[in-house]
Amino acid sequence: MTDDVLSRIPRPVTWWEDGEAIRMLDQTLLPGEERYLRLERVEEVAEAISSLRVRGAPAIGIAAAFGMALGLKRRLREGIDEPERGGAPGSAGSDGDGEDPWTAAFLRDREILAGTRPTAVNLEWALNRLSEVYAGADGGPAARARAVIREAGRIAEEDRELCRLMGKHGLEVIPEKGAGILTHCNAGALATGGMGTALAPIYTAAVRGIPVRVFADETRPLLQGARLTAWELSRAGVDVTVLTDSMAGALMAAGKVNLVITGTDRVAANGDVANKIGTYGVALLAREHGIPFYVASPRSTFDLASAGGGEIPIEERAAAEVRGFQGRETVPAGVPVWNPAFDVTPAHLVTAFITDGGILRPPFPVAIAKLLDRDAPAE
Amino acid sequence: MTDDVLSRIPRPVTWWEDGEAIRMLDQTLLPGEERYLRLERVEEVAEAISSLRVRGAPAIGIAAAFGMALGLKRRLREGIDEPERGGAPGSAGSDGDGEDPWTAAFLRDREILAGTRPTAVNLEWALNRLSEVYAGADGGPAARARAVIREAGRIAEEDRELCRLMGKHGLEVIPEKGAGILTHCNAGALATGGMGTALAPIYTAAVRGIPVRVFADETRPLLQGARLTAWELSRAGVDVTVLTDSMAGALMAAGKVNLVITGTDRVAANGDVANKIGTYGVALLAREHGIPFYVASPRSTFDLASAGGGEIPIEERAAAEVRGFQGRETVPAGVPVWNPAFDVTPAHLVTAFITDGGILRPPFPVAIAKLLDRDAPAE
Repeated sequence: MTDDVLSRIPRPVTWWEDGEAIRMLDQTLLPGEERYLRLERVEEVAEAISSLRVRGAPAIGIAAAFGMALGLKRRLREGIDEPERGGAPGSAGSDGDGEDPWTAAFLRDREILAGTRPTAVNLEWALNRLSEVYAGADGGPAARARAVIREAGRIAEEDRELCRLMGKHGLEVIPEKGAGILTHCNAGALATGGMGTALAPIYTAAVRGIPVRVFADETRPLLQGARLTAWELSRAGVDVTVLTDSMAGALMAAGKVNLVITGTDRVAANGDVANKIGTYGVALLAREHGIPFYVASPRSTFDLASAGGGEIPIEERAAAEVRGFQGRETVPAGVPVWNPAFDVTPAHLVTAFITDGGILRPPFPVAIAKLLDRDAPAE
Repeated sequence: MTDDVLSRIPRPVTWWEDGEAIRMLDQTLLPGEERYLRLERVEEVAEAISSLRVRGAPAIGIAAAFGMALGLKRRLREGIDEPERGGAPGSAGSDGDGEDPWTAAFLRDREILAGTRPTAVNLEWALNRLSEVYAGADGGPAARARAVIREAGRIAEEDRELCRLMGKHGLEVIPEKGAGILTHCNAGALATGGMGTALAPIYTAAVRGIPVRVFADETRPLLQGARLTAWELSRAGVDVTVLTDSMAGALMAAGKVNLVITGTDRVAANGDVANKIGTYGVALLAREHGIPFYVASPRSTFDLASAGGGEIPIEERAAAEVRGFQGRETVPAGVPVWNPAFDVTPAHLVTAFITDGGILRPPFPVAIAKLLDRDAPAE
């Protein structure tokens, strides 16, 4: 079983083996159907991002980077003047140093991708990183293209490594004899280039044969816990049970939960945590029951510019997400709904952060500042 | 507006004006459609109860009592030997003192109704009460039938009065300048013969022109908050907003909630409260934010036989309620779910009980014992 776990963790965005297209799991079809899309054009990647076929900040960044690489690979293969068809392999770079058409195409691709999810931080970050490589690379257009393609691969590899490190360090907080672990939303493989953030320690424990029993809050309104977390864990052979968000307290009172691990969208300098709506209530229940509450977070998610949670803006999303479900209305017509996407869990409810640089324990302002001072992940 | 409130509170079970049939709101069609069924036969009432067209313990008791009365009215009208058709009005009681066929019909009706929701306490209670009246009444079959019909009306009237008293006493805890009030599940008019339990103080405040703003947790898995509470409050002109259960903490953190009122299924002798799953988490959040948490409960819901919440059995319900929604599966096939219907809120999280006998404050063991010692509701 344990050897199987790694090979059964889903990968939301990879290259097809021929290297000419992106292989993307269509997450909108989960959990009913596991279908992989073959995306050959930048426009298809943009559509996939904006339609949430891929979601989760790191996975979106990787999809966008691969989308940029896809355009460049195509032009290397087919030549810049015949972007749609023809062009034998090897015609790459035959335009010599005619920089303008290559750059124009690069910028056009970038614009198409940048407009898909304007608020996704990793999207802009990945595109900026590729732009810098493009601008800074030596040689002609083909050399620049190859540098950008390599960089896209690096973005994916780095994320995979961050997940691995969070899994490795997170293992510290999971008892060797096994544990019941509650999680909220999806901070798993489906959201990243690797084993996920919150789910990385769980997968790592499962690989080592530690008996983990996961409880997944369904996570209204969009049900990422039921649809995605339960799907990827069960696919990998990890024991998982789904409950509604309102059942977390009863589950703890029944003695089934030894620890909680969630992901995060942003951590303030004082350790306050913005994460999927409902996380705060779970953290408060955990404290009441003496259950440790851990937040998995790569160092890029710590934001020293926000002193505390009060400075983190909370996005309010479309009412339709709460009003009903898959086309059926459950809220009476004319009755307003409230739909904040995130809440803030105060730092004092967080037992520790599981990061790629190790476990951070209170006092968090010091531990966070120290983590961000370091340059490279500590092994 | 305020005069309108009372007339716009829905009534789930009443007589049609001709008195020959029950008028029942089909709650399975809410919030999409407000349709009233005309039920003329005991079998139709039994079907309506078992199909959840009427739900909520007090409303079920009233429906069963009216169902018994319906059978008796029919026999008074049509005579005992022609139960299905014919029989001019005025033929009632023409059988003289032939007790057996009347009693046999009474017991048959009782059996049909008793089998609908075996665990509903009010159902059995109402049927027992009518049986005692039937057995104890003086005179022939017609006189006994009339005594039972009057008693069914009394059961409905008494429940209406209990609600009115909870509304009156509950007004004490609502600031005159208005308030934001959070509630969970449906403990409203739709569940009772009157203004509800938790919603009674809210309706009473609205009638007096106090500006109340209600927030209704949608209440997964069966969404009684979104479908029923939001429907009946908005129908009566009370300001109501729906949120998912996971948003209660963020709502309190945003300063929108001045008090919480919920209903209850059972209160132990020490004040521990069993209520719809998720109530416990709301109570804990309320304490964290210094927000008073009130439980509306008629005296019949206090159970001195349970010393504390640990003795209250928690019903686990069908997995299908959590697995999906209106026919669409959201949990992957093969992944188990957990579905407890209730949780226990420890007494120390309850600020006070709103009862038909007044407001009960700590120490609860003393206050509860004192309430149950009294015989009649205190005005």
